[in-house]
Amino acid sequence: MKTTPLCLITIIAEAILKERIITAIRDAGSRGHTITDAQGEGSRQRRVGEIFGENFRLETIVSQEVADRILHVLSTDYFDRYAVVAYLSTVNVIRGEKYV
Amino acid sequence: MKTTPLCLITIIAEAILKERIITAIRDAGSRGHTITDAQGEGSRQRRVGEIFGENFRLETIVSQEVADRILHVLSTDYFDRYAVVAYLSTVNVIRGEKYV
Amino acid sequence: MKTTPLCLITIIAEAILKERIITAIRDAGSRGHTITDAQGEGSRQRRVGEIFGENFRLETIVSQEVADRILHVLSTDYFDRYAVVAYLSTVNVIRGEKYV
Repeated sequence: MKTTPLCLITIIAEAILKERIITAIRDAGSRGHTITDAQGEGSRQRRVGEIFGENFRLETIVSQEVADRILHVLSTDYFDRYAVVAYLSTVNVIRGEKYV
Repeated sequence: MKTTPLCLITIIAEAILKERIITAIRDAGSRGHTITDAQGEGSRQRRVGEIFGENFRLETIVSQEVADRILHVLSTDYFDRYAVVAYLSTVNVIRGEKYV
Repeated sequence: MKTTPLCLITIIAEAILKERIITAIRDAGSRGHTITDAQGEGSRQRRVGEIFGENFRLETIVSQEVADRILHVLSTDYFDRYAVVAYLSTVNVIRGEKYV
Protein backbone atom coordinates (compact mmCIF):
# COMPACT_ATOMS: atom_id res chain seq x y z
CA MET A 1 0.00 0.00 0.00
CA LYS A 2 1.56 3.26 -1.12
CA THR A 3 1.60 5.96 1.54
CA THR A 4 3.27 9.37 1.62
CA PRO A 5 5.21 10.72 4.61
CA LEU A 6 3.72 14.09 5.58
CA CYS A 7 3.65 16.40 8.59
CA LEU A 8 0.81 16.09 11.07
CA ILE A 9 0.42 19.25 13.13
CA THR A 10 -1.71 19.06 16.25
CA ILE A 11 -2.83 22.29 17.90
CA ILE A 12 -4.66 22.54 21.22
CA ALA A 13 -6.00 25.94 22.23
CA GLU A 14 -8.86 27.77 23.92
CA ALA A 15 -12.18 27.46 22.10
CA ILE A 16 -12.36 31.21 21.61
CA LEU A 17 -9.34 31.05 19.27
CA LYS A 18 -10.83 28.42 16.96
CA GLU A 19 -11.90 30.58 14.02
CA ARG A 20 -8.75 32.69 14.11
CA ILE A 21 -6.46 29.66 14.13
CA ILE A 22 -8.42 27.97 11.33
CA THR A 23 -7.98 31.11 9.24
CA ALA A 24 -4.28 31.26 10.11
CA ILE A 25 -3.56 27.68 9.08
CA ARG A 26 -5.58 28.09 5.88
CA ASP A 27 -3.61 31.21 5.02
CA ALA A 28 -0.43 29.23 5.65
CA GLY A 29 -1.51 26.63 3.09
CA SER A 30 -3.41 23.94 4.99
CA ARG A 31 -6.05 22.34 2.79
CA GLY A 32 -8.06 20.55 5.46
CA HIS A 33 -8.29 19.87 9.17
CA THR A 34 -10.12 17.86 11.81
CA ILE A 35 -11.36 19.33 15.07
CA THR A 36 -12.46 17.64 18.28
CA ASP A 37 -13.69 19.30 21.46
CA ALA A 38 -11.27 18.93 24.34
CA GLN A 39 -10.70 19.91 27.92
CA GLY A 40 -7.26 20.98 28.95
CA GLU A 41 -5.18 21.85 31.90
CA GLY A 42 -1.64 23.02 31.61
CA SER A 43 1.23 25.24 32.49
CA ARG A 44 1.10 28.52 30.66
CA GLN A 45 4.51 30.06 30.80
CA ARG A 46 5.23 30.53 34.50
CA ARG A 47 2.04 29.20 36.07
CA VAL A 48 1.60 25.50 36.56
CA GLY A 49 -1.80 23.92 36.95
CA GLU A 50 -3.78 26.77 35.53
CA ILE A 51 -7.12 25.50 34.28
CA PHE A 52 -7.94 26.77 30.84
CA GLY A 53 -11.25 25.03 30.36
CA GLU A 54 -12.96 24.43 27.04
CA ASN A 55 -10.45 23.82 24.31
CA PHE A 56 -10.31 22.43 20.84
CA ARG A 57 -7.86 19.98 19.34
CA LEU A 58 -7.10 20.56 15.67
CA GLU A 59 -5.15 18.28 13.35
CA THR A 60 -3.93 19.15 9.90
CA ILE A 61 -1.79 17.15 7.49
CA VAL A 62 0.56 19.32 5.46
CA SER A 63 3.90 19.47 3.67
CA GLN A 64 7.05 20.38 5.58
CA GLU A 65 6.94 23.84 4.02
CA VAL A 66 3.38 24.55 5.17
CA ALA A 67 4.18 23.04 8.58
CA ASP A 68 7.04 25.49 9.01
CA ARG A 69 4.75 28.40 8.13
CA ILE A 70 2.06 27.26 10.58
CA LEU A 71 4.53 26.78 13.42
CA HIS A 72 6.01 30.20 12.69
CA VAL A 73 2.61 31.94 12.79
CA LEU A 74 1.61 30.17 16.00
CA SER A 75 4.89 30.99 17.63
CA THR A 76 4.80 34.64 16.58
CA ASP A 77 1.14 35.50 17.09
CA TYR A 78 -0.16 33.16 19.77
CA PHE A 79 2.42 31.64 22.07
CA ASP A 80 3.17 34.70 24.13
CA ARG A 81 -0.44 35.55 24.79
CA TYR A 82 -2.46 32.35 24.82
CA ALA A 83 -2.40 28.84 26.22
CA VAL A 84 -1.57 27.04 22.98
CA VAL A 85 0.03 23.64 22.57
CA ALA A 86 1.39 22.70 19.15
CA TYR A 87 3.39 19.71 18.05
CA LEU A 88 4.55 18.08 14.89
CA SER A 89 4.93 14.44 13.95
CA THR A 90 5.48 12.52 10.75
CA VAL A 91 2.70 10.23 9.52
CA ASN A 92 2.28 8.04 6.46
CA VAL A 93 -0.83 9.11 4.62
CA ILE A 94 -2.98 7.30 2.05
CA ARG A 95 -3.46 9.45 -1.04
CA GLY A 96 -0.97 11.94 0.31
CA GLU A 97 -1.09 13.95 -2.90
CA LYS A 98 -4.43 15.42 -1.82
CA TYR A 99 -2.77 17.33 1.00
CA VAL A 100 0.01 19.20 -0.72
CA MET B 1 9.22 -0.18 30.94
CA LYS B 2 8.74 -2.69 28.14
CA THR B 3 6.73 -1.41 25.20
CA THR B 4 6.04 -2.89 21.77
CA PRO B 5 6.26 -0.92 18.52
CA LEU B 6 2.96 -1.26 16.68
CA CYS B 7 1.02 0.53 13.95
CA LEU B 8 -1.48 3.21 14.92
CA ILE B 9 -3.99 3.82 12.15
CA THR B 10 -6.11 6.95 12.37
CA ILE B 11 -9.18 7.23 10.15
CA ILE B 12 -11.35 10.34 9.81
CA ALA B 13 -14.58 10.00 7.85
CA GLU B 14 -18.20 11.08 7.64
CA ALA B 15 -20.34 9.90 10.55
CA ILE B 16 -22.59 7.96 8.21
CA LEU B 17 -19.71 5.58 7.41
CA LYS B 18 -18.94 4.70 11.03
CA GLU B 19 -20.55 1.27 11.29
CA ARG B 20 -19.30 0.16 7.87
CA ILE B 21 -15.72 1.19 8.62
CA ILE B 22 -15.79 -0.45 12.05
CA THR B 23 -16.93 -3.68 10.40
CA ALA B 24 -14.24 -3.34 7.73
CA ILE B 25 -11.38 -2.88 10.20
CA ARG B 26 -12.65 -5.75 12.36
CA ASP B 27 -12.78 -8.00 9.32
CA ALA B 28 -9.21 -6.94 8.53
CA GLY B 29 -8.10 -8.10 11.98
CA SER B 30 -8.37 -5.08 14.29
CA ARG B 31 -9.13 -6.17 17.84
CA GLY B 32 -10.14 -2.80 19.28
CA HIS B 33 -10.57 0.86 18.48
CA THR B 34 -11.29 4.26 19.99
CA ILE B 35 -13.70 6.76 18.45
CA THR B 36 -14.14 10.46 19.05
CA ASP B 37 -16.64 12.79 17.42
CA ALA B 38 -15.01 15.32 15.12
CA GLN B 39 -15.75 18.11 12.71
CA GLY B 40 -13.85 18.25 9.49
CA GLU B 41 -13.22 20.37 6.51
CA GLY B 42 -11.06 19.25 3.69
CA SER B 43 -10.21 18.88 0.08
CA ARG B 44 -11.89 15.89 -1.49
CA GLN B 45 -10.06 15.09 -4.65
CA ARG B 46 -10.42 18.19 -6.76
CA ARG B 47 -12.47 20.45 -4.54
CA VAL B 48 -10.78 22.47 -1.85
CA GLY B 49 -12.65 23.77 1.17
CA GLU B 50 -15.62 21.49 0.85
CA ILE B 51 -17.34 21.19 4.21
CA PHE B 52 -18.13 17.63 5.11
CA GLY B 53 -19.66 18.27 8.52
CA GLU B 54 -20.06 15.67 11.25
CA ASN B 55 -17.22 13.21 11.20
CA PHE B 56 -15.69 10.62 13.43
CA ARG B 57 -12.06 10.00 14.24
CA LEU B 58 -11.16 6.36 14.78
CA GLU B 59 -7.89 4.99 16.10
CA THR B 60 -6.83 1.36 16.08
CA ILE B 61 -3.54 -0.22 17.12
CA VAL B 62 -2.60 -3.18 14.96
CA SER B 63 0.26 -5.21 13.54
CA GLN B 64 1.90 -4.19 10.28
CA GLU B 65 0.06 -6.98 8.50
CA VAL B 66 -3.37 -5.87 9.71
CA ALA B 67 -2.45 -2.25 8.98
CA ASP B 68 -1.71 -3.15 5.37
CA ARG B 69 -5.05 -4.90 5.05
CA ILE B 70 -6.95 -1.94 6.53
CA LEU B 71 -5.21 0.59 4.28
CA HIS B 72 -5.91 -1.62 1.28
CA VAL B 73 -9.63 -1.89 2.08
CA LEU B 74 -9.95 1.85 2.68
CA SER B 75 -8.12 2.64 -0.50
CA THR B 76 -10.14 0.22 -2.60
CA ASP B 77 -13.64 0.71 -1.19
CA TYR B 78 -13.75 4.24 0.21
CA PHE B 79 -11.22 6.66 -1.15
CA ASP B 80 -12.77 7.21 -4.54
CA ARG B 81 -16.24 7.84 -3.23
CA TYR B 82 -15.98 9.37 0.21
CA ALA B 83 -14.11 12.07 2.10
CA VAL B 84 -11.85 9.78 4.10
CA VAL B 85 -8.52 10.63 5.70
CA ALA B 86 -6.28 7.77 6.84
CA TYR B 87 -2.76 7.80 8.15
CA LEU B 88 -0.34 5.46 9.81
CA SER B 89 2.25 6.05 12.49
CA THR B 90 4.36 3.87 14.74
CA VAL B 91 3.72 3.99 18.48
CA ASN B 92 5.20 2.14 21.44
CA VAL B 93 2.43 0.37 23.28
CA ILE B 94 2.24 -1.02 26.82
CA ARG B 95 1.15 -4.65 26.78
CA GLY B 96 1.41 -4.71 23.03
CA GLU B 97 0.69 -8.43 22.93
CA LYS B 98 -3.01 -7.67 23.49
CA TYR B 99 -3.27 -6.06 20.06
CA VAL B 100 -1.86 -8.70 17.76
CA MET C 1 11.29 27.00 13.64
CA LYS C 2 12.85 25.53 16.77
CA THR C 3 11.00 22.55 18.18
CA THR C 4 11.94 20.12 20.95
CA PRO C 5 11.52 16.33 20.68
CA LEU C 6 9.42 15.15 23.62
CA CYS C 7 7.31 12.14 24.58
CA LEU C 8 3.60 12.18 23.84
CA ILE C 9 1.73 9.68 26.00
CA THR C 10 -1.83 8.82 25.00
CA ILE C 11 -4.03 7.00 27.49
CA ILE C 12 -7.51 5.65 26.76
CA ALA C 13 -9.53 4.34 29.68
CA GLU C 14 -13.00 4.08 31.20
CA ALA C 15 -14.50 7.43 32.20
CA ILE C 16 -14.73 6.35 35.82
CA LEU C 17 -10.92 6.29 36.05
CA LYS C 18 -10.43 9.85 34.80
CA GLU C 19 -9.72 11.66 38.08
CA ARG C 20 -7.50 8.87 39.40
CA ILE C 21 -5.40 8.76 36.25
CA ILE C 22 -5.09 12.56 36.12
CA THR C 23 -3.81 12.49 39.70
CA ALA C 24 -1.42 9.65 38.87
CA ILE C 25 0.14 11.41 35.87
CA ARG C 26 0.43 14.67 37.82
CA ASP C 27 2.19 12.85 40.65
CA ALA C 28 4.53 11.34 38.06
CA GLY C 29 5.50 14.82 36.87
CA SER C 30 3.11 15.70 34.03
CA ARG C 31 2.52 19.46 33.87
CA GLY C 32 -0.49 19.49 31.57
CA HIS C 33 -2.84 17.31 29.57
CA THR C 34 -5.67 17.36 27.06
CA ILE C 35 -8.77 15.20 27.36
CA THR C 36 -11.39 14.27 24.80
CA ASP C 37 -14.46 12.10 25.30
CA ALA C 38 -14.25 8.81 23.43
CA GLN C 39 -16.06 5.56 22.85
CA GLY C 40 -14.07 2.40 22.84
CA GLU C 41 -14.30 -1.24 22.12
CA GLY C 42 -11.45 -3.59 22.67
CA SER C 43 -9.93 -6.79 23.83
CA ARG C 44 -9.28 -6.76 27.54
CA GLN C 45 -6.82 -9.48 28.28
CA ARG C 46 -8.52 -12.65 27.16
CA ARG C 47 -11.86 -11.38 25.93
CA VAL C 48 -12.14 -9.97 22.45
CA GLY C 49 -14.89 -7.58 21.48
CA GLU C 50 -15.86 -6.58 24.98
CA ILE C 51 -17.64 -3.26 24.88
CA PHE C 52 -16.33 -0.90 27.49
CA GLY C 53 -18.51 2.09 26.71
CA GLU C 54 -17.78 5.67 27.69
CA ASN C 55 -14.07 6.35 27.74
CA PHE C 56 -11.73 9.27 27.79
CA ARG C 57 -8.64 9.89 25.71
CA LEU C 58 -5.88 11.77 27.52
CA GLU C 59 -2.72 13.18 25.99
CA THR C 60 0.24 14.54 27.90
CA ILE C 61 3.59 15.79 26.64
CA VAL C 62 6.45 14.94 28.98
CA SER C 63 10.15 14.19 29.22
CA GLN C 64 11.40 10.63 28.77
CA GLU C 65 11.91 10.37 32.51
CA VAL C 66 8.32 11.36 33.34
CA ALA C 67 7.05 9.12 30.52
CA ASP C 68 8.80 6.15 32.09
CA ARG C 69 7.23 6.92 35.45
CA ILE C 70 3.73 7.24 33.96
CA LEU C 71 4.02 3.99 32.01
CA HIS C 72 5.29 2.25 35.12
CA VAL C 73 2.36 3.45 37.24
CA LEU C 74 -0.19 2.51 34.58
CA SER C 75 1.35 -0.88 34.14
CA THR C 76 1.53 -1.59 37.86
CA ASP C 77 -1.77 -0.17 39.08
CA TYR C 78 -4.17 -0.32 36.15
CA PHE C 79 -3.34 -2.81 33.45
CA ASP C 80 -4.31 -5.95 35.30
CA ARG C 81 -7.64 -4.64 36.46
CA TYR C 82 -8.94 -2.19 33.89
CA ALA C 83 -9.37 -1.76 30.14
CA VAL C 84 -6.59 0.75 29.63
CA VAL C 85 -4.73 1.50 26.41
CA ALA C 86 -1.49 3.48 26.65
CA TYR C 87 1.05 4.31 24.00
CA LEU C 88 4.05 6.51 23.54
CA SER C 89 5.30 8.44 20.53
CA THR C 90 7.86 11.15 19.93
CA VAL C 91 6.64 14.56 18.80
CA ASN C 92 8.38 17.84 18.06
CA VAL C 93 6.90 20.52 20.26
CA ILE C 94 6.95 24.32 19.98
CA ARG C 95 8.21 25.89 23.20
CA GLY C 96 9.10 22.46 24.52
CA GLU C 97 10.75 23.97 27.60
CA LYS C 98 7.29 24.56 29.10
CA TYR C 99 6.72 20.82 29.46
CA VAL C 100 9.78 19.65 31.34
